[in-house]
Amino acid sequence: MPLFEHHVFICTNERDESAARPSCALEGSKKLKSAFKDAIKDAGLKHKIRANDSGCLDQCEHGPVVVVYPEAVWYGNVHPGDVEEIVTEHLVGGRPVERLRLADSCLNTDHCPHRKSKGK
Amino acid sequence: MPLFEHHVFICTNERDESAARPSCALEGSKKLKSAFKDAIKDAGLKHKIRANDSGCLDQCEHGPVVVVYPEAVWYGNVHPGDVEEIVTEHLVGGRPVERLRLADSCLNTDHCPHRKSKGK
Repeated sequence: MPLFEHHVFICTNERDESAARPSCALEGSKKLKSAFKDAIKDAGLKHKIRANDSGCLDQCEHGPVVVVYPEAVWYGNVHPGDVEEIVTEHLVGGRPVERLRLADSCLNTDHCPHRKSKGK
Repeated sequence: MPLFEHHVFICTNERDESAARPSCALEGSKKLKSAFKDAIKDAGLKHKIRANDSGCLDQCEHGPVVVVYPEAVWYGNVHPGDVEEIVTEHLVGGRPVERLRLADSCLNTDHCPHRKSKGK
């Protein structure tokens, strides 16, 4: 079989409510993951696209966070109502949904301006 | 900051011991993830390479399973003793470790010859 055309990782990390940083599960990402699974299945794309739980993607201030590979497109503040657009426009149409993309300046840095705490 | 040069997802899914399919956590993948984290940190590559927990990658008969993006290289039966070679040869040197790669015929299929059960 060919490799997945897209592999969608949805952070479902859950911290204690008192933790210094937020966590995607507390922002509803488990329902988001189910919405991706359902939408991919309903579109008949199960063997082309996989939606996957992931542990912390370390972009916690932007949750729920999603990263799509192999193209390395990062999305933040994604909710179930956004899934159809991501599937139709990005995963099928090849056009990432710009309004949901994380800014490059927030990715892969301890100094994201949205990050208030260095704690876990 | 630039995107991660490599994003390493290590399946840490854990099923009950009586489940129809095996699961990577029961094959030791939590220690494997820690070994990747440590090796990446020790090599000074923390902002270039991220090791991440993932949920089930659905290659359960080949666990512990690892997939590296953006290049979509899949590895199976990976143990902590393999980590240094993957980091040095693949993630730094750009040469995937062929002896650990999953066969294309086992990926993304319900009919992998190693799969005994259709159950979860």
